[in-house]
Amino acid sequence: MRKVIYGGACSLDGFLTAGDGALDWLHFSKDVEAVMKKFWANTDALLFGRKTWEHAAGAGGGGGSSNGIKSYLFSRTLTKAPRKGVELVGADAGGFVRALKQQPGKDILVMSGGNFAASLFEAGVIDEVGLNIHPLLLGSGAPAFLDPGARVKLDLTECRQLDGGCVLVTYQVRHQDGRSCGTQSTSGSTRPAR
Amino acid sequence: MRKVIYGGACSLDGFLTAGDGALDWLHFSKDVEAVMKKFWANTDALLFGRKTWEHAAGAGGGGGSSNGIKSYLFSRTLTKAPRKGVELVGADAGGFVRALKQQPGKDILVMSGGNFAASLFEAGVIDEVGLNIHPLLLGSGAPAFLDPGARVKLDLTECRQLDGGCVLVTYQVRHQDGRSCGTQSTSGSTRPAR
Repeated sequence: MRKVIYGGACSLDGFLTAGDGALDWLHFSKDVEAVMKKFWANTDALLFGRKTWEHAAGAGGGGGSSNGIKSYLFSRTLTKAPRKGVELVGADAGGFVRALKQQPGKDILVMSGGNFAASLFEAGVIDEVGLNIHPLLLGSGAPAFLDPGARVKLDLTECRQLDGGCVLVTYQVRHQDGRSCGTQSTSGSTRPAR
Repeated sequence: MRKVIYGGACSLDGFLTAGDGALDWLHFSKDVEAVMKKFWANTDALLFGRKTWEHAAGAGGGGGSSNGIKSYLFSRTLTKAPRKGVELVGADAGGFVRALKQQPGKDILVMSGGNFAASLFEAGVIDEVGLNIHPLLLGSGAPAFLDPGARVKLDLTECRQLDGGCVLVTYQVRHQDGRSCGTQSTSGSTRPAR
């Protein structure tokens, strides 16, 4: 079954952006390039939270259905998909993602901050967490993790140093029913998408 | 000069304790034992925030001046040291610690949560950060980091996997004046992993 993956680059104190949204602290390197190349080759769906979508779209990104990658935008306030090739999902994010995982395809990447991710953790549909921990404390910003309402147990599958003092860690989520990633979890409630 | 070290065991989402103060998720192992043994051999002073002190004292700990280790308790509300051998520090924690670092001695360990630590980061007196990142999301609890008011740049000096899927990371704080604390220390590379 397709894996749902959440993560990204963050500071040691767990922020995905600085307080003003700045990303100037991100360190790009050949190490990161290699990780991303392998990663994108195994991904064919992106799940956007609304705020991340707006940020990405404002920066000229946000995806569509190009390169065989399908984008889904989760929002309780939008009534129309902002772009052709982007599917708007208005409610029951957990249920939608659970069904999406049943469809044939590659891995699914959660493109969001901690708020939308917490709802997916709560719904038990995230299978893998990957962080590129950068060597700084930002102090404030968009947190990578917010409270999913219950502990989430993880199994470390990768830990290595990248260029620039960054640390790459990858975890498989141990689902409440005891099944590890790649197998379906039927547990968890479904907090509505934003 | 003596190093001031902050850190401890935390969850991937950066909590030192669970929301109810629970520490049942801590994984102890021979790896941790070895790290701690080397670490304590190079430490002779403990800086307690009040909350951590009360938690430690309630659990039968909290230190005194036993084993050649001196304890300092930082509080703006207490008027008397709660125990013989413990020195109460009431104001200007940063200035006190800065002076303490000038005295001869071994390394100095910050025993606190993110609040007191943030004030010491803000004062620029913390030289090293060490975390034993445990493989779980707690969701809530006592945060390891709170906003020190400005970015804190770090240099990764150690990154390795410990038993139980834990990840040990150690950083030297890059002080604003460009000094690298790592060049000031004559002590070994022992790291906190409490």
